[in-house]
Amino acid sequence: MSANAYTRTAQAVQERISDHATAFGPLFQDYFVRLGDAFDHPAESVFSPDALSLVADLALAGGKRQRAAFVYEAARLPGTAPLPGATDTGALAIELLQAALLIHDDLVDNSLTRRGIRSTFGSYKAEMPGRPQYAMGMTVMAGDLASYLAADVITSSGLPADLVVAMTQVILRAGQETFCGQMTDLERDFSRLPDLAFLDTVSDFKSGRYSIIAPMQLGLLAAGHDPAPHRETLHRYSRAVGILGQIRDDFISFFGDPAVTGKPDSVDVRAGRVSYPIRQTIAAATTREKDFVRTVLGRADATDADVDMVREIALAHHVDEELSTMMHRHAEQAAAEAVTWYGLGWDDDAVRFFAESTAWGAERAS
Amino acid sequence: MSANAYTRTAQAVQERISDHATAFGPLFQDYFVRLGDAFDHPAESVFSPDALSLVADLALAGGKRQRAAFVYEAARLPGTAPLPGATDTGALAIELLQAALLIHDDLVDNSLTRRGIRSTFGSYKAEMPGRPQYAMGMTVMAGDLASYLAADVITSSGLPADLVVAMTQVILRAGQETFCGQMTDLERDFSRLPDLAFLDTVSDFKSGRYSIIAPMQLGLLAAGHDPAPHRETLHRYSRAVGILGQIRDDFISFFGDPAVTGKPDSVDVRAGRVSYPIRQTIAAATTREKDFVRTVLGRADATDADVDMVREIALAHHVDEELSTMMHRHAEQAAAEAVTWYGLGWDDDAVRFFAESTAWGAERAS
Repeated sequence: MSANAYTRTAQAVQERISDHATAFGPLFQDYFVRLGDAFDHPAESVFSPDALSLVADLALAGGKRQRAAFVYEAARLPGTAPLPGATDTGALAIELLQAALLIHDDLVDNSLTRRGIRSTFGSYKAEMPGRPQYAMGMTVMAGDLASYLAADVITSSGLPADLVVAMTQVILRAGQETFCGQMTDLERDFSRLPDLAFLDTVSDFKSGRYSIIAPMQLGLLAAGHDPAPHRETLHRYSRAVGILGQIRDDFISFFGDPAVTGKPDSVDVRAGRVSYPIRQTIAAATTREKDFVRTVLGRADATDADVDMVREIALAHHVDEELSTMMHRHAEQAAAEAVTWYGLGWDDDAVRFFAESTAWGAERAS
Repeated sequence: MSANAYTRTAQAVQERISDHATAFGPLFQDYFVRLGDAFDHPAESVFSPDALSLVADLALAGGKRQRAAFVYEAARLPGTAPLPGATDTGALAIELLQAALLIHDDLVDNSLTRRGIRSTFGSYKAEMPGRPQYAMGMTVMAGDLASYLAADVITSSGLPADLVVAMTQVILRAGQETFCGQMTDLERDFSRLPDLAFLDTVSDFKSGRYSIIAPMQLGLLAAGHDPAPHRETLHRYSRAVGILGQIRDDFISFFGDPAVTGKPDSVDVRAGRVSYPIRQTIAAATTREKDFVRTVLGRADATDADVDMVREIALAHHVDEELSTMMHRHAEQAAAEAVTWYGLGWDDDAVRFFAESTAWGAERAS
């Protein structure tokens, strides 16, 4: 595919995802409006409705809704009409799980902003000056609440019980695999130079499972189709898309413009994260450069000039181009996997969406 | 009831709970043995199996198993035979939720020990010297994992789908209400002298919901009985038992012997917790004593002598006796509620267990 055709494809996918996001927005908003009455919380408490508001703020503050879009598109794959309400329920559940994961992730990463607004931890830190333990505690509980809401939106949906059990199981397993991926993500930072394969495993578990496989399983289930026989092909696809997505995230975070990404570019470096750009920079750098990168990495008080210097070392070794090549290789692998789905008799247009969304994954700006 | 009869009743209940605990132990152990293969985690990772081991260590390290016992006893109430496996599944789920809550609770409270062993946070802190952010992060994720396992043990049980949905919903709602209770618990500490009613609301949500109502709902469901019509009477009972349980916990923690409780006595005081003993001490103390208590409360570096002095002020104002009176009043309220269940045609012996376990709640040593 030519570079121009590639970009056009990515734009077309972006438009389709945006259409889903536009339709999903009011549904998600409505969910939070009704939520106040949906479960019992202490009438005298200010902190618990506040926590719900913060969950809603983060959940509703933009986000690409790529996971919701994947639910709706996967439901079109088998060519059978989904049960009324089933795709919406799946989309709500996966976007709630995403919110829950972000809340705890930002706490663990000490990220005070997210999607251009304060992260949940950032809000609590600002609201509770001098009481960091309480800010941490509230963030833990707000994330806990969101993660149970993600499953609850399915169990309280009124959908047929068999479908509810299968969809709930998807959310729970996706969560478990992601939590393990996040642990492995922290484990990576204890290694001086982790293998690239280790970073790929982190991406597979931390991103691929809940961002790709789970939404696709939810969509297939909503359309009355058992996803179990497709586990291996979905996993090959999701692993490649997960890796390319993680490289893209790291790339944007390290080389991107904070005004566009809504996340300060240096937070990962200061937190000591051995992300793809950092890993590749350490691998390519001279001994002196390596030593410098390692002194900056994980230093909370590293200056902007220090971080800029790490970026210059990366650019001098063409780490940006290298990551771009890696992304496109994974995008092609994923697309090659998706095109095998035509052979399953699945809907042509829906299969094309999944094949082409890999181009979008490598090109997206935020 | 005479004091002797009261103690005999409490002992009989303790024996019955112990019998359930003895039967439940091997089941819980077996659950963790099989768990390694039950879901997909990164083969190259050491951190994720380690986290599972820490969850298992905490879950299996004693604990009274009062919640499991309540599932089994509630299943006897309607007098119909429970579905095979249903009570075990409910007991596993509620004890896993308990483990999940303790993991995050100990992080939020900065408690390094629990049940006489290291808390999960305590283990990570010891294993990751100089990296407190990583110790916190791993504890967050280990708790997240445990909370999803609590629901997963139901959704993957193979029980009939309707029952699975109802039981999963019980766990999710109990979790949500408890998270809100925990937030309200932190909110309490921002008040100079919170109302006693506010502390009771915290106890209702933080303890009563998942410790009493949820196990009883799970037991009733397992026996094929819809708990919904009984929500109000179960709540009146659980609220009183939750309050008495929280007073008992606070009492043991503040006045008890750390060697018996497995928890250092001063951790709540140093963390700034306005527990029942502290609230009652501040309410009863002279102005000078109040000022002293407030200088000690929340000071991480308070000395043992400081904490001992707070305890002496409490004893000088008979706070121990006052709390004992409060506990017994709530125990009587709860028992009075339970005896109305005879009128529902429920099993006499099971109703008696719930009526009498209130005496145990006020007397238990740990």
